[in-house]
Amino acid sequence: MKKSLILFALFTTLGLQAISAQEAKWIFYPGEFEIWAAKKISQQRTERNQPHPTMWRLDAPFGQIGFRKQMSLAKPEQASIWVDGRYTIETSITGHLFDFDPLNFTLPAGEYEFVVLVENFNGLPSILFKSESYVSDETWFTDSHSRDYIQASSAHFTDPAFPPSTYALETEAIQCTVLESSPTHMLVDFGKNTFGFPILHGAKGDGKIMVYYGESKEEALAEKLAETWDVVTIDRAKAENDTLDTKAFRYIQIVKDPSVTVEGISALYEYLPVEYRGSFTSSDELINRIYDVSMYTFHLTARECHLDGIKRDRWPWSGDALQSYLMNFYTFFDEDVNKRTLWGLRGHEPFKTHINFILDYSFYWIIGVYYHYIYTADAEFVKRIYPRMVGTMDFCIGRLNENGMVQGKSGDWVFVDWAPISKDGELSFQQLLLIQSLKTMKECADIVGDKATSDKMQQLYDEKFAQFDDAFWSDKFNAFIHTRVNGEPTDEITRYTNMFAILFDAVSDQRKQIIKESVILNNDILPITTPYMKFYELAALCEIGEHAQVLSFVKDYWGDMLNLGATTFWETFDPTESGEKHYEMYGRPFGKSLCHAWGANPVYLFGRYFMGVYPTAPGYKEYTIAPALGGLKWMKGSVPTPQGDIKVEMTQKKITVTTVGTGGTLKFKSKNTPKTNLGTIVKGDDNEYTLKLDRAGATYEVTYK
Amino acid sequence: MKKSLILFALFTTLGLQAISAQEAKWIFYPGEFEIWAAKKISQQRTERNQPHPTMWRLDAPFGQIGFRKQMSLAKPEQASIWVDGRYTIETSITGHLFDFDPLNFTLPAGEYEFVVLVENFNGLPSILFKSESYVSDETWFTDSHSRDYIQASSAHFTDPAFPPSTYALETEAIQCTVLESSPTHMLVDFGKNTFGFPILHGAKGDGKIMVYYGESKEEALAEKLAETWDVVTIDRAKAENDTLDTKAFRYIQIVKDPSVTVEGISALYEYLPVEYRGSFTSSDELINRIYDVSMYTFHLTARECHLDGIKRDRWPWSGDALQSYLMNFYTFFDEDVNKRTLWGLRGHEPFKTHINFILDYSFYWIIGVYYHYIYTADAEFVKRIYPRMVGTMDFCIGRLNENGMVQGKSGDWVFVDWAPISKDGELSFQQLLLIQSLKTMKECADIVGDKATSDKMQQLYDEKFAQFDDAFWSDKFNAFIHTRVNGEPTDEITRYTNMFAILFDAVSDQRKQIIKESVILNNDILPITTPYMKFYELAALCEIGEHAQVLSFVKDYWGDMLNLGATTFWETFDPTESGEKHYEMYGRPFGKSLCHAWGANPVYLFGRYFMGVYPTAPGYKEYTIAPALGGLKWMKGSVPTPQGDIKVEMTQKKITVTTVGTGGTLKFKSKNTPKTNLGTIVKGDDNEYTLKLDRAGATYEVTYK
Repeated sequence: MKKSLILFALFTTLGLQAISAQEAKWIFYPGEFEIWAAKKISQQRTERNQPHPTMWRLDAPFGQIGFRKQMSLAKPEQASIWVDGRYTIETSITGHLFDFDPLNFTLPAGEYEFVVLVENFNGLPSILFKSESYVSDETWFTDSHSRDYIQASSAHFTDPAFPPSTYALETEAIQCTVLESSPTHMLVDFGKNTFGFPILHGAKGDGKIMVYYGESKEEALAEKLAETWDVVTIDRAKAENDTLDTKAFRYIQIVKDPSVTVEGISALYEYLPVEYRGSFTSSDELINRIYDVSMYTFHLTARECHLDGIKRDRWPWSGDALQSYLMNFYTFFDEDVNKRTLWGLRGHEPFKTHINFILDYSFYWIIGVYYHYIYTADAEFVKRIYPRMVGTMDFCIGRLNENGMVQGKSGDWVFVDWAPISKDGELSFQQLLLIQSLKTMKECADIVGDKATSDKMQQLYDEKFAQFDDAFWSDKFNAFIHTRVNGEPTDEITRYTNMFAILFDAVSDQRKQIIKESVILNNDILPITTPYMKFYELAALCEIGEHAQVLSFVKDYWGDMLNLGATTFWETFDPTESGEKHYEMYGRPFGKSLCHAWGANPVYLFGRYFMGVYPTAPGYKEYTIAPALGGLKWMKGSVPTPQGDIKVEMTQKKITVTTVGTGGTLKFKSKNTPKTNLGTIVKGDDNEYTLKLDRAGATYEVTYK
Repeated sequence: MKKSLILFALFTTLGLQAISAQEAKWIFYPGEFEIWAAKKISQQRTERNQPHPTMWRLDAPFGQIGFRKQMSLAKPEQASIWVDGRYTIETSITGHLFDFDPLNFTLPAGEYEFVVLVENFNGLPSILFKSESYVSDETWFTDSHSRDYIQASSAHFTDPAFPPSTYALETEAIQCTVLESSPTHMLVDFGKNTFGFPILHGAKGDGKIMVYYGESKEEALAEKLAETWDVVTIDRAKAENDTLDTKAFRYIQIVKDPSVTVEGISALYEYLPVEYRGSFTSSDELINRIYDVSMYTFHLTARECHLDGIKRDRWPWSGDALQSYLMNFYTFFDEDVNKRTLWGLRGHEPFKTHINFILDYSFYWIIGVYYHYIYTADAEFVKRIYPRMVGTMDFCIGRLNENGMVQGKSGDWVFVDWAPISKDGELSFQQLLLIQSLKTMKECADIVGDKATSDKMQQLYDEKFAQFDDAFWSDKFNAFIHTRVNGEPTDEITRYTNMFAILFDAVSDQRKQIIKESVILNNDILPITTPYMKFYELAALCEIGEHAQVLSFVKDYWGDMLNLGATTFWETFDPTESGEKHYEMYGRPFGKSLCHAWGANPVYLFGRYFMGVYPTAPGYKEYTIAPALGGLKWMKGSVPTPQGDIKVEMTQKKITVTTVGTGGTLKFKSKNTPKTNLGTIVKGDDNEYTLKLDRAGATYEVTYK
C-alpha cells in the first residue's frame, strides 16, 4: 500500500513516455533519503502513550538542496519537472524561470548549467526531470547550499506521483481471534507477535476507548502497565473505523466507556517487502522451528532501518545493527535497509558525540560499512559515505587519551555488554575495536583511492596493534586481559576481547588455540548471558570448530523460548526464571522486548557457520563454503549473494553445492578419500580437503565420510 | 494580531498564579528562537509567483532539545508544564513519567535532575514550567542532544498559550484608493510604499484573479513583468475574503476572469512594533522630510530580521545588516531584531561557507556583534554567541593564503562593492576587515573571559596590522593601495580601504588628514555610486569634518528621490536616469527595490554625525555628544540609549543637551568663550571645547559662537 500523494498538484503523465526514452529517476543529495527514513522510524517510539524522542541527535535531511546539470542543446526542447518542495529554476541563459508549466516548459538552446534550488524542511528535497536529451539521474550534481557539489543519488523511485518521501513499507490486512468480550472490554489474539496499524472497527458513540497492547497476554491485560497503549476518543453517531499508529503486539485489549460501541478489531500488518532468499532445514525439527521463528523475528525488526526491537526501543542502535547487517546477508540480502541504517546512524556533520552516545558503537559503525561492502561489493556506497567515515575516525582519534589509547570521556557511554565487568581505564576491548576500525578505514580508503588516508591508517593500525598486543596480552593468563588502569594491567580476564580477537582474525592460529583453552572453553571465566554478546561467542565457538556445542546451546536456549510459547525471539532470556518474570526488564513488568533483532541470531549462525558460506572477496567474487553438520544428520539450504543463491546440502556422506560465479572454494573434512562429480579435490593437512568451485551455476557433489 | 494556537490542547490557567509567584518563561536553546525567526522570514521570498529559496544554507532550529533542572524538594509538590513539541519527562527518582496531567502532576520529594526531552522538527522546541519551588528560566540547562549542556535562553514569552513559535509581527488594517476599475480589472493605490497581507474582499464566482504588485504604478501595470504577483483561483458562490501572503507594494492591480467578482481590496500592514525613540528636526524642511521617509523606510525593513529590501530579496544580508544594526541604535533601539539577525545569519555548525557566501560578510558579522555590544552592553548576548564567533574566525584564519593574507578561494564571493574595481590577489580592504575582526574577537574574548583567545587575537592583530601597513600603505600615493597581485602592489587606489581606515580609527590623525586630501576629497579617485558604500563614505566625510558637503549631498541625492515621488528610499539611485529607467535593475524592468534598508542611511547620519551622539563605553556608560550643524540653522532631536533618550538641540548660538547617566562628554567648537549653566567647560586645541556631562537626567545649556 502506497500512501496517496497530497504534496503535488494534479498532473498528467500523458505523452511523457514519448519525450524520453531514458529512465528519469527521483534524485536527491547522497544519504538524505536514508537519513529521512531513519528519522521517520526513530520518531515513532512511544511508551505508555507518551512520545519518547531519541536521547542522541537525530538529523533531519538538509532543508535546501541544489540540483545541477550541465546542458548543451543545439535547439530548444521541451522538458518536465516534478519537485518535492518549493523551488526555483535558473539557467545562465534565461535567468530564473517564471510563469512556466512545470510539465511542459522550454529548455533554451546553448551551453549552460541548469539549476534547480529546492527547499523542503519537512520532507526530503528531491526532483524528477525529463526532456528529450536529459533525464535526472546520478550524473547530476547536487549541493546542500554549502558549496559542496557532489553527484546525486537515487533509490528506485521513478514514478512522478511517488517521490522518495512517499516511501512506506507494505501492509496487509490481518485478523485476530476474540478471546474475551464484554460490554466494556475485549481481548483479542493475532496468533503470533506482529507489528502494524491496529484498526478499531465500527466505533461510534461518545466516550473513550483504552487500547492496551501486549506481546504477551499478561501485558495486554496489565492495562496501563503495558509498555504501549493508546487512548481513542470517539464522538460520533455513525460507525467508522479508526486506524491507529503502528505498534508491536500479539494481543490487544480494549476497555471502553459503555457509551461507546466497537464492532471489532483487526490490523494492517506492516512489513518490509523482501524475499526469503536464505533458507535452512535440517534433520532436527526443533532447529528448523528455531530457524523459522528467527527469520520471522528478523523480518519484523528489519524495516525502514534495522531496529533493536519492535515494541521497544524501535530505534536503530549501531551495536545491534551490526548483527542485523550480517543476518540480512543470510536471509533477504536487502542492501537498502543496511544502507538506510548506516546513513541514519551517522547523520550529518558536525559529529559531536559517539553514535548512540556509545563509544563502542562508533567503531561498530565503521566496521559495519566494510561488512556491507564485503558482502555486496557496493563501492559506490562506500564512496558516498566515506567522508563521514573519515569524520567519525577523526573524532575517535581526537579523543584518544594521553597514552594514545581509547578511553571513555565525559558523555561517552562505555558499554561492551550488560555484565558485571570493569569499565575503568583503558579497556582492551575498545582498543581492539579501534584497531579493527583502522583496518576498515584503510580498506575503504583503498576503495575510494585515498592514498594518503590509506597510508595513515595502515601506519596507525600497525602502531596501535603493537601497542594493544604489548599492553594486553598476558603470557601468565594466556589471554588478553580486560583492562589497564593508570597504565597498570589488572588481573581481570573476560571473554570479549579474546573472542573478538578470533573473530577479527587478529591473532595467529596458534594463539586462537591457546585462547580457546584458556578463555572460550574455560568455565571459570565470567559467562556471557546476553544474546547480544552470545552472537559473537557462538560465532567464535564455530570459528574454533565447536559446532556441536553451539547446536546444543541453540536447542536449549532458543528451544526453551519456543517451549514458553515464543512466536518471536526475545531481547534476553533466563531459563531459570518463570511465569511473568520472563517479561520483566529495566524495572518494568513488561519492559522486555519479545521481538528483538539479536534474538534472531540463528539465521546468521546456520548460514555462516553450519552451511559455512561467506565471501572472501567483495560481493562473493570469491567465497568459501565450509559446511559443518555439528551433529545434525543432514541440512539443506541457500545463502543469497549478489549473483544469485548458493545452495548447500549436506548429509553425513555427501555434500552438494550449487555455485554462483566462478570464485568458490569448498572446504570440508573427510576420514576417507572424498570424490566429486566436477573439479579436483585437493588434500590439505589432517583430514582437510578443498575443492575449487570454478564453474558458475554448477552443482558439485562430493562424497565423503 | 497574534496567530491562534492550534498546537496545544485546551487548557485552563486557573489557579496557576496561585501556584507560583516567580515568573515562568518559555525557554529554549540559546539562539534557536532567533534562528527560527530568521528561517521563517528568509523563506518568504517569491519572484513572479515562484518561490525563491536562499542560495546559502538556511538552518532550521535543532529538532530535539533537552531541558534540565536540578531539583531539591523536601516534600512532593504539584507542577504544570507546557511544551511546544512531542516530549517525555524523566527524573532519576521516578524514571519516565506516564499517564500524567501536564497541567497538574506531582514532582517527587528528593534531590534529582528533572529532564524534559522535546522533539519538534517543524517549529521550535521550547517549554514553560511552573511549580511552587521552580519555574522555567535561564537557570535551566539545555542541550541539543549532543552532550552540549548550556544555560537556556528566553525571549519575553511567558503566556502558556503563546510559545515562541507563535511569534508574529503586529498588523493593522490599511485602505487604498481605487485609481482604475473595469469589469475585469482594478488598480488601487495605498498612498505610500508598504508591506503586508493583501486582502481581496468578497470574491466569488469561478475563475482566476491575477494580482500584480507594484512599488511603482508602472510595475503594477506591467503585470507579469512585475517582480511579484499572485494567482488566486476562486470557485465558490458565496463571497469571501482572501488574505494573501505578505508582499511589498504601493499599488495593486487585479486582472480577473469576468466570471469572478471582487468587491474591493485592502491590506493588513505588517510591522515590527517599535517606538520611534530617535528623532531629528531641523531648520531645513527637505532634510526633515528625508529623515522621516528614511525612518519609515528603515521601519519597513526592520522585521523578524533586518532585510535588505521588502520587495527583493527579503533576506538578511550581513553587509546590509551591519548598517541596519547602527541605524537601529539611532531610531528604535530594538535590540531583539539585531540579535535575531546576527544569530540567523550565523546559524549552526558546521560553518562551511562565508556568510551569504561573501568573504567580506563573515567579517562584517563578527564586527556587528561588537557594534551591538558597544551600544547595548549586552554581555550575555556576547557570551552566548561567542563560540560561533570563534568558529567563524577559525574558518577565516583557516583560509588565509600562503602569505597569511585574506584572499578569495573557490566558492567565495569577493564583493567589496558594485563597482569596476579589481578583485584579484590580496585586497587591502579584506585585510582591513580581518584586522578589525581580530580586534573585535579580542574585545569579545575579554568580555567572556577567554584569556587564551584574547592573547592569540591580540598577537594576530599586531602581526596582521603590521603586515597590512607594510604591504599596502604607499608613500608615493599617500594612500592605501587597493590590491597586491602575486606579491606585487598595483597602482590602483580606491576609496574603500582608505575610508574604512578612518572609520575603524586604524590610522593616526595625521594620516587621516593625508588620506582626506589624497583620497576622500580627491575627485580623480573612482567615485562611490552605491548607497551601500555611500553609507561609509558619508560617515568618513563627517569624521573629517565635512558635514556641509554631506548635507549638500543628502539634499541632492535623497531630495531627488523625493522629487520623483519616492515614499521610501531606494536600493540605488542615479539622478541622470529618467522615467521607468529608475525602476530597472539586474536586467529586469522593475528589479530595483524601492524600499531598501541602506537607503535609510540619513537616520544614522543625523543621529551619529550631526547630533553627534555615540557611546565610548558599552551601553552608553560613557558617551560623546559632538554636535555639528553642517550649515543648518538649527537642529533638535533625540538618540535612544539603554538608560533613556539623550536630547540634543543646537542653534548657531546655543547647544542644549539632556543627559542619561553620568558619563557624557559634550564636544564642540566656538569662536568665542562659551558659557554653561552646569559644569565646567574645558578649552582644548584651536577652538575646541569639552564639557563633562556628569549629572544624570540633567539639561546642560551652552552658549557659543
